[in-house]
Amino acid sequence: MTSGPLIAADKVEGTHVYNPAGEKLGFVDHVMLDKVSGRAVYAIMAFGGFLGIGEKFHPLPWSELKYDDSKGGYIVNLDKRRLQDAPAHAGTDFEWTEEYGRSVDKYYGARSYWD
Amino acid sequence: MTSGPLIAADKVEGTHVYNPAGEKLGFVDHVMLDKVSGRAVYAIMAFGGFLGIGEKFHPLPWSELKYDDSKGGYIVNLDKRRLQDAPAHAGTDFEWTEEYGRSVDKYYGARSYWD
Repeated sequence: MTSGPLIAADKVEGTHVYNPAGEKLGFVDHVMLDKVSGRAVYAIMAFGGFLGIGEKFHPLPWSELKYDDSKGGYIVNLDKRRLQDAPAHAGTDFEWTEEYGRSVDKYYGARSYWD
Repeated sequence: MTSGPLIAADKVEGTHVYNPAGEKLGFVDHVMLDKVSGRAVYAIMAFGGFLGIGEKFHPLPWSELKYDDSKGGYIVNLDKRRLQDAPAHAGTDFEWTEEYGRSVDKYYGARSYWD
């Protein structure tokens, strides 16, 4: 269920993420929203793993993502290495903290959600 | 996966919606986001139905929802009747249009996303 500028949140999940050269980096596994404003704060990207084993989630500040209609996906202006070295967490029993959020914002030089 | 002010988009889905008197009105079936800004624009509420048969989806401008930590859900300041008479659509093969969005915004007197 999508039209023009709107997209169902559960369709964002699964959307591919590319670098500016058009190489596929991964996909959006899920999105973290601010409960009150409904604003997307982090897109949590996944890069493979096998049947969930060894899978790591890499949060990206939402502001790093640009939607590209022609690709039908998001473009991030980051190379693969920068993403691989970025803050990441395992999928199970993870408790999101402000400290972790700040480390993500700082790594990408994004204006912090937590300020 | 949630902490403090953040919530995973797929956890918003399923969150109960109450009126100010604390009566349960329904639940958030899904959320429509602006693809570019990541802002939640509509919360699509569901009110029952049976195994998907006869189920109707009622979009609400996100601004109508207030998160209530003590309830663990959203409060909307609308009576049940006003919700029942509101713009609604069936779940299958629905194509969201600007016209439909405008009718929703107008019904609730919300500032229109489409302006």
